[in-house]
Amino acid sequence: MCDYRYFFPINVSYSDIDAQGHVNNTRYGTYIESARLAYLQHLGLWDGEDFQQLGVIVADVHITYRLPLFYGQQIEVGARVSHIGSKSLKFEFIIRDAESKAICATGETINVGFDYTKEVSTPISTHWRNIIGEFEGQPFS
Amino acid sequence: MCDYRYFFPINVSYSDIDAQGHVNNTRYGTYIESARLAYLQHLGLWDGEDFQQLGVIVADVHITYRLPLFYGQQIEVGARVSHIGSKSLKFEFIIRDAESKAICATGETINVGFDYTKEVSTPISTHWRNIIGEFEGQPFS
Amino acid sequence: MCDYRYFFPINVSYSDIDAQGHVNNTRYGTYIESARLAYLQHLGLWDGEDFQQLGVIVADVHITYRLPLFYGQQIEVGARVSHIGSKSLKFEFIIRDAESKAICATGETINVGFDYTKEVSTPISTHWRNIIGEFEGQPFS
Amino acid sequence: MCDYRYFFPINVSYSDIDAQGHVNNTRYGTYIESARLAYLQHLGLWDGEDFQQLGVIVADVHITYRLPLFYGQQIEVGARVSHIGSKSLKFEFIIRDAESKAICATGETINVGFDYTKEVSTPISTHWRNIIGEFEGQPFS
Repeated sequence: MCDYRYFFPINVSYSDIDAQGHVNNTRYGTYIESARLAYLQHLGLWDGEDFQQLGVIVADVHITYRLPLFYGQQIEVGARVSHIGSKSLKFEFIIRDAESKAICATGETINVGFDYTKEVSTPISTHWRNIIGEFEGQPFS
Repeated sequence: MCDYRYFFPINVSYSDIDAQGHVNNTRYGTYIESARLAYLQHLGLWDGEDFQQLGVIVADVHITYRLPLFYGQQIEVGARVSHIGSKSLKFEFIIRDAESKAICATGETINVGFDYTKEVSTPISTHWRNIIGEFEGQPFS
Repeated sequence: MCDYRYFFPINVSYSDIDAQGHVNNTRYGTYIESARLAYLQHLGLWDGEDFQQLGVIVADVHITYRLPLFYGQQIEVGARVSHIGSKSLKFEFIIRDAESKAICATGETINVGFDYTKEVSTPISTHWRNIIGEFEGQPFS
Repeated sequence: MCDYRYFFPINVSYSDIDAQGHVNNTRYGTYIESARLAYLQHLGLWDGEDFQQLGVIVADVHITYRLPLFYGQQIEVGARVSHIGSKSLKFEFIIRDAESKAICATGETINVGFDYTKEVSTPISTHWRNIIGEFEGQPFS
């Protein structure tokens, strides 16, 4: 859990709270989505502007909930790539309290290479492998 | 996949579509949430009114995406309970096109017995086991 | 209020409920958005598929809240065009309970003609004026 | 426009972007909601924890859209109270780019005094009038 190199800060919004008074489980999904996109931007793999050039599509999401999140809470979402296959990446996430660092949730997503203009899946390029491998300090050859 | 006894109908809303032009991955989560709550209401285990009496809380969500969903699409979400432990239930879901019956996503959630007024986890009652077991045609003793 | 010729049905979702236990005020906005888009599709002015061809953009939204909306409530959203200017349309809406017909909210939006591919505003075409005028039984010349 | 004394910062999230590629019109509503709640917390009128003690309910929302908002944009939402009646407050808002200060939207809401535990409207207290009047540098007697 300790070796996330990228964290994305989020301030929990009222619009994330559901009828039970906590952040809705599906909003955790938007938090890890925000972190994943910001990670790709941080590494220069997406410009944050052209949604057709995002390069990957979500194939699988798995989130484990440990602690409720509350309105106004400052959290930070750790994101990293733990595996790169021929056509997909595996991302891992933690959501933790920004102050106490208590882990509130963990998650994984599988993201498949995807060309949104042609609507076809694509291999993960050598360029992505190199950039991500360098950032994570781990070869993805 | 063929033995779901409860389906919840949904008409895909514009507000579920993201910048990629398809239903956002996190909105699939709201679809299975809607089906799970409606399932509990259908079995008389929740009245649909008192959120503090819902009786369960989400501990784990896993969704696998097979096909994109589009604005205006009519879908139906199958929900069933496949396992009941001492303190939790395992739900399974499919999201399929209402007309073609093509499976667009599958999912599982773990829901833990929870007393929202006391904010403590609780066992799954014999009453729930009996009602669900009867509905699913499968004993959960 | 009685002369709406188009109504769009909605089943209030759990994901629309906020921490106060009612439908969040901003979700009423998604309801009238759904009705507005469905109205344009009903009249054959939008195909429901190509978001770049929607033809109008929101310039102003005004909603007055009369009654809270609840989880699971069946509502219907009336939509009509009450005025067409050179470059914009004025839509009016009511949100009412599907059974009792009690009016829960009223709303207005101003939608400006817009070409999303060129990102420029456009006049409202004679074709739109004719189709809408015929549907509403009121000339918009 | 220049005399807002309270601004709330927001980083536009991917989940706020709709199929047209800009922030959805209804999400502007969540931005001014966030600013309104934060304003009440800033003035010590709400603790940010007990939703039943929020003290006001939304009766009317009016938003005028001037500029599109984009993914990742840093914005700030100005909030102020411009009028206090016997049972309601009028809030005014601007949404502007955090860097250029370009005004992207303006809004107004009417919020009625409300006791969520009893579900009845209530007068705006002298305490609120004094605190808000002092903050805004304007008597609301």
